[in-house]
Amino acid sequence: MSPTAPVKVLLFDVFGTVVDWRSSLVTTFEPWGRRNGFSVDWSAFVDAWRAAYMPSLMELRKTAPQPFPTLDQLHRQSLDRMLVDGPLAQATTTDREFLVKAWHQLNGWPDARPALQRLNKRFVVAPLSNANTSLLVTLAKFAELEWDCVFGADMFQRYKPDRELYLGAARLLDVEPEQVMMVAAHNNDLRAARAYGLQTCFIPRRREFGPQQTVDLEAEENWTIVANDMLDLADRLGCYG
Amino acid sequence: MSPTAPVKVLLFDVFGTVVDWRSSLVTTFEPWGRRNGFSVDWSAFVDAWRAAYMPSLMELRKTAPQPFPTLDQLHRQSLDRMLVDGPLAQATTTDREFLVKAWHQLNGWPDARPALQRLNKRFVVAPLSNANTSLLVTLAKFAELEWDCVFGADMFQRYKPDRELYLGAARLLDVEPEQVMMVAAHNNDLRAARAYGLQTCFIPRRREFGPQQTVDLEAEENWTIVANDMLDLADRLGCYG
Repeated sequence: MSPTAPVKVLLFDVFGTVVDWRSSLVTTFEPWGRRNGFSVDWSAFVDAWRAAYMPSLMELRKTAPQPFPTLDQLHRQSLDRMLVDGPLAQATTTDREFLVKAWHQLNGWPDARPALQRLNKRFVVAPLSNANTSLLVTLAKFAELEWDCVFGADMFQRYKPDRELYLGAARLLDVEPEQVMMVAAHNNDLRAARAYGLQTCFIPRRREFGPQQTVDLEAEENWTIVANDMLDLADRLGCYG
Repeated sequence: MSPTAPVKVLLFDVFGTVVDWRSSLVTTFEPWGRRNGFSVDWSAFVDAWRAAYMPSLMELRKTAPQPFPTLDQLHRQSLDRMLVDGPLAQATTTDREFLVKAWHQLNGWPDARPALQRLNKRFVVAPLSNANTSLLVTLAKFAELEWDCVFGADMFQRYKPDRELYLGAARLLDVEPEQVMMVAAHNNDLRAARAYGLQTCFIPRRREFGPQQTVDLEAEENWTIVANDMLDLADRLGCYG
């Protein structure tokens, strides 16, 4: 793979890379909890919920159900396990649906929207996410993210880092893997993308997991591009305002 | 199916319904033909090329190759058959690729772009087309069509009017079939959509096939909505400017 192969497509990881899921969820849940009489440490709550995500993907790999459950369904499963006891044990079905649906309305990082508006003038830009398509579409409308198309994990019935997603998106866009750049705040995502022949861009999001974040603070390999944020990426790719 | 079930998603047929493929292609091919020394009746040429489309789909249904060829590949196959003799028989591979790629850059009908800008404020709007995803993405950038996501036939490895497309799009958007309205200039497309439980909107495009058009001049059934054009549809759905 030549680092100078012309890139035509930019695929974006979404949670953490494009949207600030943690503070968005906490900001939604705090007033909702007060109104509904749930006394909860919401930062700890969303951290625990997110922490259930990787184990649930590992479990899927072992049992390999077909069709794969969507991210909405995984969120609901892990939520129900968390709420067996504790202050939210009495949460109704409606409450639980509200909590799961909150993942559909997250704020973009401040640079995300203006950067996509610049990048989509010269590149095809799309999310490549473990979220389901419907979640990505709702999220894009909420955060005003101007994607050219949307790739949810449910389109491929697989989850990242499986090759079917990265190469499936390239195939659907009729480009070679090296004409695609994966953009992510997570080194592991980029390791997979590089293994399948894609170019890579790391963007650090050092507060994705809150003030105590310990992972993905820096680029861990010589990725094709290491940018400060998405606006810096737009500059580096010659997409000015 | 209740005609008053709340619609959340509008799926659009593309060729003919949203874009004016015929005059766009003729306008592209005429100067190209002059520059390259091809003396061709381009209106007759594009009509013949388009006429090969339905037979090629029928042939696919008999042979059922997996994976299904994309619309780009079908266009190329039918083009090669047409050029066995005649004034374009000497067309090179580059020439043929140019002709096929012209289907990626077609003008929207004048109402399409402003109507989508109004409709996408209240609905999820997406193409559901027999075109491949890459074609739809290029076309949307060219004609500035603001889709929320894109559904190409290659995502489903099937062609309309197969149920996998209509119900697959509803499933990916996490809505019931009756929450989806198919919008098309072709009665047959709507007959399929209705059979699978979708709501329907007919928009006549009485010059899609040129001045001699004989089909789809009028709504042939009592579709959920019959609109004059896409702006009229936006009005009817309460999406004002």
